[in-house]
Amino acid sequence: MKQIEKVLYDGFTYIDGGVCAAKGFRANGVYCGIKENPTKKPDLCLVVSDKLCRAAGVFTSNKVKAAPVLVSKAHLEQTGGKAWGMVLSSKNANCCNADGIDKANRVCELAAEQMGVQPEELLIAQTGVIGQILPIEPFEQGMGKVYDGLSAENHEQAAIAIMTTDTVPKEVAVEFQLGGKTCHVGAMGKGSGMICPNMATTLNVVTTDCAISAELLQTALSDVVQYTYNCLYIDGDQSTNDTCVVLANGLAENAEITEQNDDYAVFRQALYIAMSNITKMLAKDGEGATKLLECTVTGAKDRENALAVAKSVIASDLLKCAMFGADANWGRVLCAVGYAPAEFDIDQVAVTLASRAGSVDVCKNGAGIDFSEDIAKTVLLEDEIEILVSVGDGPAAATAWGCDLTYDYVKINGDYRS
Amino acid sequence: MKQIEKVLYDGFTYIDGGVCAAKGFRANGVYCGIKENPTKKPDLCLVVSDKLCRAAGVFTSNKVKAAPVLVSKAHLEQTGGKAWGMVLSSKNANCCNADGIDKANRVCELAAEQMGVQPEELLIAQTGVIGQILPIEPFEQGMGKVYDGLSAENHEQAAIAIMTTDTVPKEVAVEFQLGGKTCHVGAMGKGSGMICPNMATTLNVVTTDCAISAELLQTALSDVVQYTYNCLYIDGDQSTNDTCVVLANGLAENAEITEQNDDYAVFRQALYIAMSNITKMLAKDGEGATKLLECTVTGAKDRENALAVAKSVIASDLLKCAMFGADANWGRVLCAVGYAPAEFDIDQVAVTLASRAGSVDVCKNGAGIDFSEDIAKTVLLEDEIEILVSVGDGPAAATAWGCDLTYDYVKINGDYRS
Repeated sequence: MKQIEKVLYDGFTYIDGGVCAAKGFRANGVYCGIKENPTKKPDLCLVVSDKLCRAAGVFTSNKVKAAPVLVSKAHLEQTGGKAWGMVLSSKNANCCNADGIDKANRVCELAAEQMGVQPEELLIAQTGVIGQILPIEPFEQGMGKVYDGLSAENHEQAAIAIMTTDTVPKEVAVEFQLGGKTCHVGAMGKGSGMICPNMATTLNVVTTDCAISAELLQTALSDVVQYTYNCLYIDGDQSTNDTCVVLANGLAENAEITEQNDDYAVFRQALYIAMSNITKMLAKDGEGATKLLECTVTGAKDRENALAVAKSVIASDLLKCAMFGADANWGRVLCAVGYAPAEFDIDQVAVTLASRAGSVDVCKNGAGIDFSEDIAKTVLLEDEIEILVSVGDGPAAATAWGCDLTYDYVKINGDYRS
Repeated sequence: MKQIEKVLYDGFTYIDGGVCAAKGFRANGVYCGIKENPTKKPDLCLVVSDKLCRAAGVFTSNKVKAAPVLVSKAHLEQTGGKAWGMVLSSKNANCCNADGIDKANRVCELAAEQMGVQPEELLIAQTGVIGQILPIEPFEQGMGKVYDGLSAENHEQAAIAIMTTDTVPKEVAVEFQLGGKTCHVGAMGKGSGMICPNMATTLNVVTTDCAISAELLQTALSDVVQYTYNCLYIDGDQSTNDTCVVLANGLAENAEITEQNDDYAVFRQALYIAMSNITKMLAKDGEGATKLLECTVTGAKDRENALAVAKSVIASDLLKCAMFGADANWGRVLCAVGYAPAEFDIDQVAVTLASRAGSVDVCKNGAGIDFSEDIAKTVLLEDEIEILVSVGDGPAAATAWGCDLTYDYVKINGDYRS
């Protein structure tokens, strides 16, 4: 999947290369058979840097934390935010297993042996079914193969290896300048179920050749997550394995960013572009989804209130079904606005539905207005829908992303241990 | 639908009669054509008492409140909690309409004229599509007809008249003794989408011939709602029209309940039996549902924590899909337990799945245990499933009810303005 962010920012250019777009990063993905799979879809990947990176991460806030989450957090603490790379796998979440930590550590050891580094200098993320014992043999047999195939070209193989119910790999990369040096930020991510906005979501790896301190890298990541992954809602189920890591190797040779100056602002913007693109890709490829939904709330008294309303709308199962059916059932928008935990005057609420096919006002001052059902249908038959909600005259706005609720969501998740 | 509460309480007997089981109540439901409907399903109903009742209500906490909610609340305030009965209609929510209040008042006037009482001595509830202007002519033409057919036998017609996407009418009634007098509590309710536990749900009418003060009637209703309708979750969408009213006419001639004594405890129990039965009926007949799900959490430090976990489990779309597919994917239970806003030790969590076909332990000490997939399948193929979660050694427990998520939920709600 290619970038779908509409806004083009001055000074930033989309390029190919995903997590290998930044200098000195190589990646690969192979099938090692973590779960038998006749399609041989890759299930194990490595993303490594030629130089030791500054590393930062955000992780699930679910009380149930998968073993790889606990191991990655421990490694970041042990090293003070340094890593040579990351090992990721799909098909088994390695969560709720008594021997999960041992296995996650063993996977790091296997990768570290190949790379000739210390295990704690690697991060790990895993995704798949919860509560099934992780077989370690596939890792023992596959780690050499995935390591030997590492290259700057194999970024898409890596993005494929972390897919679960995703239908397409998700990658993005941007190029920009810092003090005359060409820099890059690249990313890959996977969905596509068990996704709710609360401290990162899903597995995401961001790489950059910018030089930046570990502390500011963490600051930028934690900040941007609030405007991207934490504004994403697929099904309200917050995963046990959510992990978003950024690795910065400094090979662009810009002056190291050590304070929140102009360079920091440019880097933060690059991070935002990469992560907001992945966020939208995740929404559009949500389990069973046929449409990307984007709800923007304006006129709120502060961002917190605006975001609460946007999330409430994007999370409504009834509205998600109506969007699947291309039905301009704006009453469901207003209903969801009404139960959002936010302060505003419901009598000032206005709603517009829009897409590349046009737009239609459906509600003003909290009450319905006449509109053409034909035009509304045309607007809603598109595959990217905007729901614009104005809640008053306040200065704040926020956007949240989601998708429609379809037969296929039920099919995917009603089937045996998908 | 008949009572499905499993526990039989000493001194209480299930009887027929729904909202007309209590002395002095009559009801009726007719088709008046609020929305054209070839099946002529009744869409207008009256529930009236031979004697002025004490009345209490709980209503939606959605900021968007339908006109009938606002009118009923105003009437209860004006009369200090008295009413001769209630008028209810389906097919149009009379919500988000500029003229909604006028129309709701007019409907009360039409009923009051037939009955020879004051409009403010009637309550009103409406359900259906949000944001469509309510046609008043059908009420003008139908009110005489529904009034003329009032009888103690027509309770089911009334229960049918409030149905929307419900597949069956929902009624229950119990008989019990208070100081040698035979008393009754009867109820009817409708679902079946836009249901989330937060200050009552759906439309519910409870009638009783007990003599009880208006204040204690409200106390009992508000209390029991916390253990019944507020523990119900269909789709997370909290309706704009939620209304639960109880009418008490005192014709049983028991000594009026004016304090929280033993008689109050018996009355509260009767109310609980009626309302918990309707709650389960609503869950079982949730939009598109094939299974009733009941999650009981034990070992919590207090009821608040227990209920937070139970609601989190019952609300998980992923788990709801797995239950539809009869898949013992207990990892999804643990995931939902983990993101519940509650305090407990995740390493102490145990999960058992049960039904009338048996039970199977699937998780202990926060990790998976060996179990027979065949037995689990047999357990989960039943249409009433219990999910038992122990979160520790604490004294508190709570139960929440819901249903599975199916293709039909999407179909019902993806269709044009259902």
